[in-house]
Parts: sequence; structure tokens; C-alpha cells
Amino acid sequence: MTVGSSPIRKDAVAKVTGKARYTDDFTMPGMLHAAYVRSSIAHGTVTNIDISKALAMDGVEAIFTYEDVPDILFATAGHPYSLDPDHTDVADRLLLTREVRYHGDEIAVVVAETKLAAKEAARAVLVEYEELPVCVDAASALDENAPAIHKGGNVIKSHQFEVGGDLETAIREADSSVSGQYYTPVVQHCHMENHIAYAYMDDFEHVVVVTSTQIPHICRRVVGQALDMPWGNVRIIKPYIGGGFGNKQDVVLEPMVAFLTTKLDGRPVKLELDREECMTSTRTRHSSILDCRAAADRDGTLRAVDIAMTSNTGAYASHGHSIPSAGGAKSCNLYPRNAIRFSALTHYANIPAAGAMRAYGSPQVIFGLECVLEDLAREIGMDSVDFRIKNVARELDVNPLSNKPIRSAGMVECLEKGRELIRWDEKKRRFAHQQGPVRRGLGVACFSYGSGTYPVCVEIAGCRLILNQDGSVHMQVGATEIGQGSDTAFAQMAAETLGVSYDKIHVVTTQDTDVAPFDTGAYASRQTYVVAPAIKKAALQLKAAILDHARKMTGKAAEGLDVVDGNVVNANRPERVVTSLAELAIDAYYHKQRGGQLTADVSHKTRTNAPSFGCTFVDLEVDIPMCKVRVHQILNVHDAGTIIHPLLAEGQVHGGMGMAVGMALYEELLTNPENGRVLNNNLLDYKIPTCVDTPDLGCAFVETTEPTGAYGNKSLGEPPVISPGPAIRNAILDATGVAVNRMPMSPKALFTHFHDAGLI
Amino acid sequence: MTVGSSPIRKDAVAKVTGKARYTDDFTMPGMLHAAYVRSSIAHGTVTNIDISKALAMDGVEAIFTYEDVPDILFATAGHPYSLDPDHTDVADRLLLTREVRYHGDEIAVVVAETKLAAKEAARAVLVEYEELPVCVDAASALDENAPAIHKGGNVIKSHQFEVGGDLETAIREADSSVSGQYYTPVVQHCHMENHIAYAYMDDFEHVVVVTSTQIPHICRRVVGQALDMPWGNVRIIKPYIGGGFGNKQDVVLEPMVAFLTTKLDGRPVKLELDREECMTSTRTRHSSILDCRAAADRDGTLRAVDIAMTSNTGAYASHGHSIPSAGGAKSCNLYPRNAIRFSALTHYANIPAAGAMRAYGSPQVIFGLECVLEDLAREIGMDSVDFRIKNVARELDVNPLSNKPIRSAGMVECLEKGRELIRWDEKKRRFAHQQGPVRRGLGVACFSYGSGTYPVCVEIAGCRLILNQDGSVHMQVGATEIGQGSDTAFAQMAAETLGVSYDKIHVVTTQDTDVAPFDTGAYASRQTYVVAPAIKKAALQLKAAILDHARKMTGKAAEGLDVVDGNVVNANRPERVVTSLAELAIDAYYHKQRGGQLTADVSHKTRTNAPSFGCTFVDLEVDIPMCKVRVHQILNVHDAGTIIHPLLAEGQVHGGMGMAVGMALYEELLTNPENGRVLNNNLLDYKIPTCVDTPDLGCAFVETTEPTGAYGNKSLGEPPVISPGPAIRNAILDATGVAVNRMPMSPKALFTHFHDAGLI
Repeated sequence: MTVGSSPIRKDAVAKVTGKARYTDDFTMPGMLHAAYVRSSIAHGTVTNIDISKALAMDGVEAIFTYEDVPDILFATAGHPYSLDPDHTDVADRLLLTREVRYHGDEIAVVVAETKLAAKEAARAVLVEYEELPVCVDAASALDENAPAIHKGGNVIKSHQFEVGGDLETAIREADSSVSGQYYTPVVQHCHMENHIAYAYMDDFEHVVVVTSTQIPHICRRVVGQALDMPWGNVRIIKPYIGGGFGNKQDVVLEPMVAFLTTKLDGRPVKLELDREECMTSTRTRHSSILDCRAAADRDGTLRAVDIAMTSNTGAYASHGHSIPSAGGAKSCNLYPRNAIRFSALTHYANIPAAGAMRAYGSPQVIFGLECVLEDLAREIGMDSVDFRIKNVARELDVNPLSNKPIRSAGMVECLEKGRELIRWDEKKRRFAHQQGPVRRGLGVACFSYGSGTYPVCVEIAGCRLILNQDGSVHMQVGATEIGQGSDTAFAQMAAETLGVSYDKIHVVTTQDTDVAPFDTGAYASRQTYVVAPAIKKAALQLKAAILDHARKMTGKAAEGLDVVDGNVVNANRPERVVTSLAELAIDAYYHKQRGGQLTADVSHKTRTNAPSFGCTFVDLEVDIPMCKVRVHQILNVHDAGTIIHPLLAEGQVHGGMGMAVGMALYEELLTNPENGRVLNNNLLDYKIPTCVDTPDLGCAFVETTEPTGAYGNKSLGEPPVISPGPAIRNAILDATGVAVNRMPMSPKALFTHFHDAGLI
Repeated sequence: MTVGSSPIRKDAVAKVTGKARYTDDFTMPGMLHAAYVRSSIAHGTVTNIDISKALAMDGVEAIFTYEDVPDILFATAGHPYSLDPDHTDVADRLLLTREVRYHGDEIAVVVAETKLAAKEAARAVLVEYEELPVCVDAASALDENAPAIHKGGNVIKSHQFEVGGDLETAIREADSSVSGQYYTPVVQHCHMENHIAYAYMDDFEHVVVVTSTQIPHICRRVVGQALDMPWGNVRIIKPYIGGGFGNKQDVVLEPMVAFLTTKLDGRPVKLELDREECMTSTRTRHSSILDCRAAADRDGTLRAVDIAMTSNTGAYASHGHSIPSAGGAKSCNLYPRNAIRFSALTHYANIPAAGAMRAYGSPQVIFGLECVLEDLAREIGMDSVDFRIKNVARELDVNPLSNKPIRSAGMVECLEKGRELIRWDEKKRRFAHQQGPVRRGLGVACFSYGSGTYPVCVEIAGCRLILNQDGSVHMQVGATEIGQGSDTAFAQMAAETLGVSYDKIHVVTTQDTDVAPFDTGAYASRQTYVVAPAIKKAALQLKAAILDHARKMTGKAAEGLDVVDGNVVNANRPERVVTSLAELAIDAYYHKQRGGQLTADVSHKTRTNAPSFGCTFVDLEVDIPMCKVRVHQILNVHDAGTIIHPLLAEGQVHGGMGMAVGMALYEELLTNPENGRVLNNNLLDYKIPTCVDTPDLGCAFVETTEPTGAYGNKSLGEPPVISPGPAIRNAILDATGVAVNRMPMSPKALFTHFHDAGLI
């Protein structure tokens, strides 16, 4: 069995030896370099731009301003195109803008022979502005006198749903209820590889863009839309990627480099953001304010949850209201047997644009939900774990929003396993009645998530398999390896179903939209779930073609044959080898009468969406006078269905937990409310946890078998980032009695809260 | 109708603007450059090699000698792998050799930071030899005392067939018979782009070779064989190609660059031959001696043809005996109603290795055949055209060698059309009884050729079609665009069958063996013939998928629908548009429940081989004292079945005729018989015709419909080069009465012949 084992990653050697080629590792003769001219104000209109001095500088080839770009508004969110006109993304971008909406907005672009020359000339472009007042948060942006950041005002969208009974009645009838306001910050993905892309033309019709993207096929469409080119004339190539985390689920640089090459006779033009630009001028995680209520009976039965979310998308919509919308919907699987109301509003502000980021709204919603539920458990005096076990989803519960049954649910087992692993009960007793400046606390929080975007978006994936002359198999998928290890998991699946060893599967890791099967890309923790059926179908088709060719070679009925360990064998007696795949392949390729190249080419739409579950347990220590938190133990327990590759799964969990610890304790992209300028647009001032700051990360799985998963599997990519934040908040509350209802729970925040609580 | 029209070539803009990227247009950071150390003798053994001085030179990274390469003999001919052990190519190459077999043999290779450094260091390698006698031609190589150039002696292979009755009886019984010996020279392809390749590794398993090759998929196999690597671990990428003409139907540089990168930690290593190396150390056309006899009755009925061919393959076998073998077999279609004997022997010699070159043996065999038949026509006093019309193939004649019926034969019509176009009868009368130093003459010669290699080799081709989101179609084929325009012809075919316009077909012109459908490549004039059925099948499959999706969208039965001009229409009333392909594609991609990416992926084996026919008519003037020939008019008339793209077809004919005029009048790669050194290894001394030397080239077609051709088509790529040579020889004979039985009919050759004939 290949699925369930942990073979060496397909890209392991390439990456550890430095041979893996990323976008910046490619060069082309005559390549030009571009640099943006960015606004030095956060809100206003350009009244004059003088490029003459810059244009005269050495090495400068061309400068384009907002006057030179197509008058086409386009949307950048990496969503599939939608047939539903009410469900299209907000088209609020021009390639370059005269209307400045955040500090760093793109006004012009310089193209020069070197990156340095382009950067220097960009600084020499003189821009004059007429300034407008700056709104950085909900209070200012939603004020009735606020200036409109976009035509149509500052509210992008709002929505509400109420399921599982009348919410107000449920609250009224419940024994107890609590409420609270919770805040999640702007954080940044901080992927190692900054945004980078280059484009060129081989003729005057076709634009080729090589880019670090999670969504090559979507990118193709958006470039076509932004430039009003037929989409088939755009070709996107994705090499290895140095991390994305959702920030490359957005079309950021590609339309610009495509535009530039069309204007420059097809010459290659590269655009590479530096870290500072990447921090402020790509995307961030939406900050949010969560006004929550929850009610339960004395016996611990949860009766109602009400979450009202205000989400700040910054200067441009990008994924906009999809973030709270998805966050609200995906959490409905978690506590499905009570009234739920979820309402959300997304607004613009003069801060960097927010977009997709790992778990896409769920860390925000779950922070509110798991904080308010913790407060509720304390209110009714029930153990946090017991309270959750009583109310979380169980198999064959029905999602109250989608009315779909929950086919696999290991949530209770995750809680039980985590409780045992962290020695919850023992420590609870030990940590009771603490005094003194340093106190230990335990926290828990749960999450549910989806496996893809269905039924909100189409879920389409593709796989093509080719039996090589040597009996090995090449696999093309449209799904994208962005560091998460998908190529490895996919190879395992193909090997499993084909009956060959993992090392015989060669994965075409570079997506090239001209030839790669269509797939919308790496996001929504969709890939193992929605690509798996395409791989399984393709592998079964290829296997059938192999057995049919074996029939032609041997005269034996295909039904009596099987493929085991790379050999065609007698199905009843697998020890009897009929022919090796290598021999069969040579016959199929080279026999003059029979056979051909054996391939399978499958495009598959998934019409299910399995919820995955999990929880975080935290044991931490709070130094109250120092306002510092030290995590002794943190443990994620996941129900992601069948685990395809335990070692990679563990890696995913560790990575997500690390990001979550950062958001919980350290990270926040801060904006000066006066002028909209980001205060910490670099990795010195913006504090991500290093190995010194990161606690040992514990990880455990409860393996369920998801019936709708081609290999029993469900999502795992994003989920690990969701629940550590509220678990840490709940542990600090447990330790100190102080509810720190915001992230990050930095020393500064703890100081305020402890001071207000009279602890210091 | 797209087939039969002449839309702009797919690569036209890329090529005329210089944007088309050839192998040398790609660069990689850290790329190294290699240069061979070549032998300065033509035959012998290296007794000592001293690399120390070279290795110490600036920029030199490594030097490998014959001692460092795998001890694996491999074959370089670009043939499909054969399941028949008696039909495998001769494996007589090592990557580097200690045994020197021609002047320029590869003894060592230097890798350096620049090409110049590599070349200079290569010159600094000191080599000592033990010399052996040199054999440059059949007389010396086949002498019983000749030194063996390879183990096993100097004869590679010989064979003979006799069909259509007993040859000697037929000659004896015929009214007249003639005989003669004819000689064809070593010529070189002189493609504009010299051989070039580079290789790199992304990990330590997979080698990527980017190369100017006609045969990427075969190249993959040969690199695997030469390096003892699994073939699936080798990836060949073919960008645009600046001509091949058969010289890139050989695996020349690819195993070496692949070897070098494996030895140099996967770093990219480029190897680019200069013109001098390309002239002597790639491949040439085999020279041949043709001993011919022919017999006919007084009424002009051809009774017998006997050709004994001695073919000189030079230092290595490469395509070796396949050349006379194919030449002999393919000419059997031309005069199929008489006794035919063909015998051939191929031998080694200490001259540059010969390989495949346009028409692959046929120019040699047809030179002998059409010369001896001209002599025979004169012997019986019959008009050259009448004699041929009487004897050439007609529809439903049977090929006496293959016993396959000739399904389409426009040979008679070609002769009649050519006779009329050149005003044969009128000129014949006018040119009769000429005196004086300058005389006009008319000549004619016919040819037949094949459309591929079946049944000698497997004929496999593949096509994958993808319906894009915008309703356009991407097409992947494994067949290779090498400048001949195949991408254009293939796009026409796909457009024709799909019912879309030509400009909606995007061709993936770069072959990448990891993803391109399998196809053995560009040779044997096979591509339009053997790829067409794969395209047609794929297009029909994709069309069926389109109509099936239209059914899902509209509820109308697929059988009642058709695709016309890019729209799905009512089959009975094509003016009624049901949906555009763009609308349908968007629905197929993005509808949440139905559809998917619509593709078709076809691998097809062709099991027929249609003969194509044609002839050359020449009207020329011979200046006897000056020994110069001036061609007034030269005209090729071709039966290539349906003409897919008349303008490209004309271009092919012009190109082939130009090459043929070169071989007939100017070109010969000369070797010093004393030391085996090539005397004219450059384009100053080796005389190819320029535009000044090339006469106006006339071209006409007789369009037949070949039933086995997917679009009625047959071969056209190589045939134009076959018959001009003998037609020119026959015209010189007509003008002067002197039979110049050798090519090139250069002033030097004419001087000898005219002097011997007493004309000067």
C-alpha cells in the first residue's frame, strides 16, 4: 500500500540540493526589469505626474502611467469563473490607478535594463496629489461622513443566514447566555518567495507568463480579462513555488508583466517585489471584529450561536466578502444541532488590500466562536472539553446550512485523544487554584472546515497519465504543487490505483496552462480531495488500457488479469507474472499492428464537500508581570479522513500551527491611522516566530474514512492554522482569569488587559 | 474548407520577426560549454592523451576522455525501436572513442565556462596515435587487404530482392537492353542551424535535454540507452528548429550533453557545433555506385530493371544499410509491371559518417534508374516521356515488392501535365539537330516515394486536443515542426474536422517528451500522412464531446447537432446557431454539475503506406567549351494526393528542387584519399547554390485522392529532391549526346566527359 506510507517527497532532492528552479532562477536574453511607482499617500487623486526626469535616466526603456493602461476594471481574486452573474468577483482594479486608495498604490511602472535602474527611475517620477481623508478601520470607513474609497461606497457586501431554529427564541429559552466582542488582526503570509513574474511573447498573439502562482489556470483567465485578450492566447507557466498560503491565490503581478511585454515588442519583462512591497502591496489576512453571542442549557446543551462579523478588506476587494462568507459557512459543521445565525459585512479601508490567507476566514470566525463558547462553558460551569464533546458534530449529523449529512466525523475522538495526550484532567487538577505571578493554563478550541469550495464554486480537476516506454508513468495534473507536497500525495494515489511502485510515477510538477489538465489550483484545502477522484479515474482507465493490451499480447481475458508491483499478473494468482509493464509498454509502443501510446486523460467535477474537523489543546504559562506567554505544550488533533502521507501530513500540521502561534502571540501589520502608512512592512519590525519562539508542535490524527473521498481523505492543508489562536486565548483565560479577546496576545495587549483587570 | 487553402503559417510572425526561439536562444544561469577534442588522423588508435595542460587553462571545469565514458555501444539512427532483433540499428558508437575511424572523431570533451575557453582548451589536449591505413571508398574499403574499421569488418550489410518475374530471363527475352554505372556524391544537408543541445538536471534522477532534433521521442530512448538510464527519466525538449533535412534524424549531441550534466552535478552544459564540425562530424548523404541494367521491347514495354548499389556509410553505421534498402523498396512503385532486381551493399570507410538525408536513398537509386531508363529509351528510339507514360504505375497496379495495390497514382497525369507545361513537343522539334558550342536540351525523370516507413517500422502518431475556455483549441502533437510547416498543416486538419476556423487552433509547437503525445518524429515524409488520422480521430472525439455537452446544455439530441464555423448548429439547418463554442466551453468548464474540460487524446498506428509520385522536366542550355550548364526551366510535377496547403506545398517543392539542383550541379563533400581529411568543410569551399545560381523553380500538382490518407493526402516533404538530378543529366545528354553518369555535373566533371567524348 502506497497510500498511508511516507515515501520521500518527489521534490525532496531538488529542494534540499538547491536544484529546484523557481521563477527567479530562469533568465532570458534581453530581459527587462520593471518597478512600480507607488503612491506616497493613502487616499486621494493624482493631479500631476512628471516622468521626464526618470525617462532620461540610464537604462530606462519605458515608463507607463495610469494614462497608458487599458480602461478595464478587473477582479484579482483567484476564484473560478462563475456562471452566476450575482456571484462574480468585484472588478475594482485597473493596471495602474490615478485614484489612490492605500499607501503604496500603483500609479506608474518603469521598465529598465536592470532592476536597480528601474527602482531608481521609479523614485525619480514626480507625482502630485490631491489628498482625501484616510479611513483605516470599520469605525472610520463606515462612518456616514466617510469619503467613498470606491464608487458605490465603502461597503462591499453584507449577508446573513439563520439556521437550526429561531436564534432569538433559542437564546431566550436557554438557561444561560454570554456575549463578547473579539478582534482578529491584519497579518501577512510571509511566504519565503516574494511575488515574482515575467512575461514574453513568441509572436504578437500569445503572451507567456512565468509566475509564482497557486492558480495558473485562473491566472490565465484574469490576464485575458485584464488585457481584453482571448484567454486561449495567454499561457501561464508555474515553476516551483516558495510558499503561497493564499497570497498567490490572487492575480497580482501577472496582468502587468503581460501588459508590459505586449507594449515592448514581446521582450521579456520581469517584475519582482521586494519584501517591503510584498508586505503591503500584495494581500493580507482580513482583520475582523466579531460580535458573538451564545446560549446553552445548564446540562451543557448548546442552544444558539450568533456571530456578527465585520471584515476589513482594505483598499481593494480581492476576495472581499467571500472571506467571512466562507468562514461562516464552513463553521456550520462544527456545532450542527443548535440555532446558528451568522451575519457579515465587508468594507473597504485605506490600508493594504486583504485577500485569501490560509483557512480563508475560518481563523477569524472560529476565534469568535471558540472564545464565546469558552466563556459560555465557564458561565455554566462545565469543563471545556466535556462541553464541546457534548455539542460537536457526530457522524450523520446534518449540516444545518447545506442540509447535507456529515458522512465522517471524528471530532469527538479528536477531543478525547487530545484530552488524553495533553493529560487534561490531571493538569486541570494540578493547575487549579494557582496564585503568584506565573500561572499555568489549559485551553482547547475546535474547528470544522471544508474540502474545497463546492457548492459555492465549481470543483474541477484533471489528471493525465502516460505509460512510458520503460513501464514508468508520467502524471500531469492541473493542481499545483506550492510546497505542500501535493505532487507526492498525487503520485501515491496513482501508484496505489495503478498497482505500480511510487518511484515509477514521474510527476510533471511545472504547470503549463497550454498542456496541463484544467484545475483551478491550490486553495481551499481542495487538492487532495478534488484531485483524488480525477487521479483514481485516470489510473483505472490507464489500468484498463494496460490490461486490454495484455489481452492482445497474451490472448488472456483482461478480467482475469491485474497489475501488481509493476507487473501484469494473473488476478487469482498474483504470484504468476504474465508480463512486466516495461515489456508491455514496449509492445504497445512498437508493435506494428497493435497498441499505441497508452494514456488516460480525465477531467472530473466533484459535487461533494466533506467537512474535516480537529482541535487544539494548549498547556501554557503566563508570566503576568512580564506580560509574556510561554507555551509548554501545544497539540493539534485532526480528523482529515484517511491520511495519505503521514509525514507530510504532520508537516502540514506543524506549519499551520506555527503560523497560528504567530498570529495568536506576535503578528500584526500595523497602520498609522492618521496617514494610512504601514508601520512594520518588513521582517524586522513585523514579528513572525522563529524557531526560538516556536514551541514544540504536537500533532495527532484520528483517521476516519470519508465515503466521498476517493481514498477516504478530506482536507488538511489549511485547517491546522484555525484553532490554535482561540485555544491559546482560552488557556490564558484559564491561567489568569483574564479574557484577552483579540489577537495577537502580545505583551502589549496582555499588559493592557492585565492592567484593566487589576492583575498588574 | 480549411484543408486546401493557404492560411498564414502558424510560425510566420514568430519567424519573420525573429521572435521564434531556437535552442541557442535559451540560457540558464551557470551554463557551461563543451567542445570536442577531435582526432587529427582518419584511422588509428590513440596511444596517449595528455589533458594536463588543457585542464589548467582558465575557465576549464572538466575534461572527459574515452576512458571516462560508459562502455556502452549505442546506435544513433533515428529509427523507432524495433521488436525484431534482426532489425535493430547497428550499435557501433561510444560517447568518446579511442579507436579513431575518421578525421574528426571524438576522443575527448572539454567543459568550460565559455565556449571559447572550451575550444581553446580542446586544442591544448595532446594526443598521440598509432595510425592505420585509410580507406575512403568502396574500392579501398572492400579490398580484401583493407584494415577493418570496425570489428566484424567493413561490410555492414547486403541484401537483394527480385520481383516481377525472373530478371535474367526478362532481359534475355527483351528486344533491347542497356547497362551503365552511375555515381552519386557525398553531400551535406547544410541546414541553417548547426547541431546544438544543452542538458541539465533538476534532481539527480531526471536529465532534461533541450535540442534541435527532428526526433525528440527517439532521442529520449537513445539517450537512455547510451547512458543506461531508465528512458522515463530522460526528457527531451525541442524548440523551433532551423532545418534538419534528416541530419537531425540522428542522435548526435544529446547523449553527450546528458552525460556531461550527470557528471557535473546537474549543471547545464551546452554543446554547439560550428559549421566546420557540422559538415564533417554530424552526418552526410551516402555516396553510392549504381550498376544498372534495363531492358525493353521495341514497342516501349519495359521488361526489366536491375540495380546493384554500393553505398558508403563512412566511419559509423548511423542509418547504414537502411538507406539503400529504403531507396530500393520505395522505387518499386514507379515501374511496377516488369521484372525488378535490386541488390545493395553498405560498407564502412574512413570518411564522415553518412546518415539520413532528404529522400533517404531514393535520390541515389532514382539517379541510377532514371539514367539507365533514359539510355534505354534512346536505345529503342522512343520519346522519353512516351516511354515513361507507357510504363509507369497506374491506379490499381500492384507494388511487386509489397504486393499492395497502388490506390492512387497520378504519375501519368504528372508526365502529361509536365510535358504540356514545359512545351516538350514543340521544344523537342526546335532543339533537334543543334550544332555549335551552346546547345539546348530537354530532360525528364520520374520518381516514386513512400508516405512513411510502414511496414518496415511501426508508424505511430499522437494528437491531443483541448477545448479552451474561449472556445479556441490547443493542439499537442508528437510530430515535429522542423520548418516544413507541419504545425500549420496539422492545424488545418484539426480545424477542418472540428468545424472551427484555422485561427482558433493553437499549436503547441515545442515538443516535450514528458507531455507531448508519442510520435517518432519528422522523417520519411511521414508526418502529414501518419499524423493526419490521429488528428482526425482526436478531432472527431472532441467534436463528439462538444456535441454531447451541447446536448446536456440544450436537451437537443447530439445527432441533430453539428459544429460549423465555431458554432454548434442544427445539423439540418446550419444557419440555426444553438450555441457558440465559447459559450459551450464556459458552461463545460464552469457549470457546477455537468461537463468538465473537454479533451481528446489519441494515439494511432498507421498500417498503410501510400506511394507518392512525380517527375521533373528540365530545359537547359550547355555551354560546351565553358563546361557550364544553364537551366532555362525546371519543373516538378507532383502527385501528393490532396494538397493540404498549396502555398506550403509549393515551398516544399521549391526547397527540394533547390537542394537537388545543388547536388546535380555543384555539391560534393570531397575527401583526400591519402589521409581522409575533408577538403571543403565550409560553405566557402563547399558550393551550395545561392539565389544567383538557382533557376526559377516551377511547380505543379496533380491532385489525386488517396483513399488511405485521412484527408486524401500523401507524402510531399522529401520527394521534390529526388528526380531533378537525373532529369538534368538526361537534358545534358539530350543537348550534347554525352552521358554524364555522375553527380555533381560540375564544370570539372563536364570537362572530363566532353573531353573524353571529343567535344572539346
